[in-house]
Amino acid sequence: MLASPPDLRLSGERFQVIYQLSGDEAAARAKAADICLEQTVEFPDSLVPAGAIRDGIVGRVESVRRLTAERHEAAISFAVEIAGGELTGLLNVVFGNISLKPGIRVERLELPERALEIFRGPRFGIAGLRRMSDVPDRPLLCTALKPMGLSPEQLAELAYQFALGGIDLIKDDHGLTDQPFCPFEERVKRCAEAVHRANRETGRGCIYLPHVTARADQLVERALFAKQNGAGGLLVCPGLAGFDAMRQIADDDRIALPVMAHPALLGSFTAGGGNGIAHFTLYGQLMRLAGADASIFPNVGGRFAFSREECVSIAQGCAAPMGAIQPIFPTPGGGMSLDRLQDMRAIYGREAIFLIGGGLHQHGPDVVENCRYFAKMAQEM
Amino acid sequence: MLASPPDLRLSGERFQVIYQLSGDEAAARAKAADICLEQTVEFPDSLVPAGAIRDGIVGRVESVRRLTAERHEAAISFAVEIAGGELTGLLNVVFGNISLKPGIRVERLELPERALEIFRGPRFGIAGLRRMSDVPDRPLLCTALKPMGLSPEQLAELAYQFALGGIDLIKDDHGLTDQPFCPFEERVKRCAEAVHRANRETGRGCIYLPHVTARADQLVERALFAKQNGAGGLLVCPGLAGFDAMRQIADDDRIALPVMAHPALLGSFTAGGGNGIAHFTLYGQLMRLAGADASIFPNVGGRFAFSREECVSIAQGCAAPMGAIQPIFPTPGGGMSLDRLQDMRAIYGREAIFLIGGGLHQHGPDVVENCRYFAKMAQEM
Repeated sequence: MLASPPDLRLSGERFQVIYQLSGDEAAARAKAADICLEQTVEFPDSLVPAGAIRDGIVGRVESVRRLTAERHEAAISFAVEIAGGELTGLLNVVFGNISLKPGIRVERLELPERALEIFRGPRFGIAGLRRMSDVPDRPLLCTALKPMGLSPEQLAELAYQFALGGIDLIKDDHGLTDQPFCPFEERVKRCAEAVHRANRETGRGCIYLPHVTARADQLVERALFAKQNGAGGLLVCPGLAGFDAMRQIADDDRIALPVMAHPALLGSFTAGGGNGIAHFTLYGQLMRLAGADASIFPNVGGRFAFSREECVSIAQGCAAPMGAIQPIFPTPGGGMSLDRLQDMRAIYGREAIFLIGGGLHQHGPDVVENCRYFAKMAQEM
Repeated sequence: MLASPPDLRLSGERFQVIYQLSGDEAAARAKAADICLEQTVEFPDSLVPAGAIRDGIVGRVESVRRLTAERHEAAISFAVEIAGGELTGLLNVVFGNISLKPGIRVERLELPERALEIFRGPRFGIAGLRRMSDVPDRPLLCTALKPMGLSPEQLAELAYQFALGGIDLIKDDHGLTDQPFCPFEERVKRCAEAVHRANRETGRGCIYLPHVTARADQLVERALFAKQNGAGGLLVCPGLAGFDAMRQIADDDRIALPVMAHPALLGSFTAGGGNGIAHFTLYGQLMRLAGADASIFPNVGGRFAFSREECVSIAQGCAAPMGAIQPIFPTPGGGMSLDRLQDMRAIYGREAIFLIGGGLHQHGPDVVENCRYFAKMAQEM
């Protein structure tokens, strides 16, 4: 028979995960009890050693609350130490094995100081990115270099026009990596140069953010290359590269650039059916823990399927108090056009980045004029 | 108006993704057309430049086939070059943005040689792992070191008993990382030593696979430490660390150990509702591209919710022809007990690893005897 060590020397500090559970109260309580085992000891309840393991390692149901007859919310706490001081470990405790079980959705993380202190969080946050862009209070304007297939010269010419027209943040489309028809290094050099040239003409501080998601062994290298060649920020896809790979880029003092997170491959977490991670947590809390300064997501009313309520919850997750972890910019995009700006302003207020991609090519024939129109609308907001 | 470059110098080689689409035929055709744009140019159809971009970059619907009145299957092809020679890029083209849209599920990848040659795939595969374990034809037996909270000494004692009893592969529970009550380096040293000691007594080739998922900047370091301290394989969670981080570990010639993949955090991809990535692709094809030699998943009839049919499809994805990419071991587990062995044998045949964790502590009071019973049953299969 296995026995607990006499003392695991745990601090007693615990973090909480709020889960939404499908089923009536009995089913929800059974799910909650199961989560306590599944996310820690992964052991049959009857075999869990009494003492320090049962008392300190196994999760603890703090509360179960009825939402509807068929949905309940449970708060479950875990010893801070079991996440092992790592984001990968935290993700695992929060939703590792139980992602494989039906009817369990992560609603919210409640992390005490001791859990938060292992994360630096966003290096710039809203305040830093505003300072860097020299935009003290209006929403920031962002667009993307596309379509894939344009040459680095063509993308640089577009970047120049966007910057001239008053865009604040110009990112690569996240499909641009290091294709033979648009090599990473040439693209970064040309686009960064074009944006700096426009900035000299306008006196403004437009930032170019190349997409650096790459092989695990090349991500830091690409980020450093971007930094050394004039990029003012970086675009990373944590769904493709891993949340902690983004955290690594954000935390690296040699890089020290704002990081914008793109949601590629993350959609299944919010696809519904009672499974997954809530928008608030995924696009708000987790992006901040993983070092993003801005979190892109598909806005309501565009090409994608997020509801207004879900979008609002993302903005809340980007701003909710999290100890010393700064608030970040919600960055709604995904098929936005200029006529959606008023509504975006109504939803997000000023603490947001408005991302308009293809729509900037559609308003009129002159891209610079379209940007000026976009910038003028934002000035008046 | 944007213009295509005259020539993108594409090879003409294309890979195909088979998607299952919700909706009637008209809806499915609209979804298929949308995927072609969304996964490539991310641009309104009317603005896509004619010529090389429209012809070469935009995806192409190769076929649409009716499954039921409300489900269709579409084959969509993409130029090999747009994945940029990277697994992260391939994942993005296959399911990046469209993971955020409802009613689209990846069913299968069809990759030509030119797409496959960027991947080394599993270094060992079924044949290599059999050679290493000296088990020529029966199913391999695997168990996990748990529960979390045991000290490195206690886990090492368990590892010794498992190895003595005839287990082939002993992995860390994936919740074990580098907790203060069970530090990584001490655990690896003690458990590897214990397994080697048992092997000297039995003359067998039991392998210890520590869990090395960690911060992005420490993963390779942990894998190297494990290698240098007697580990015979590694356990990695690609859902936590990123698929390409696992690929990096598998491809590193300094490490050169078998990799077992754990499904933590991947559950939402197969949670249903018409969104996601099919079991065949996620736990079979993608694990192989990402270098796993064995793919753990929750077997039917255990603590999780995969169906028999889904489990069979995983085994098929582990074995389906993929050019030079070797077949790998399906590794069903998750709440298995000894009385499930016959059924596992019926489902998977001999080309599988049977993973029994807590169940090995339940059969009787003596762990070594329980393992011997497990091994004897497997011998007779």
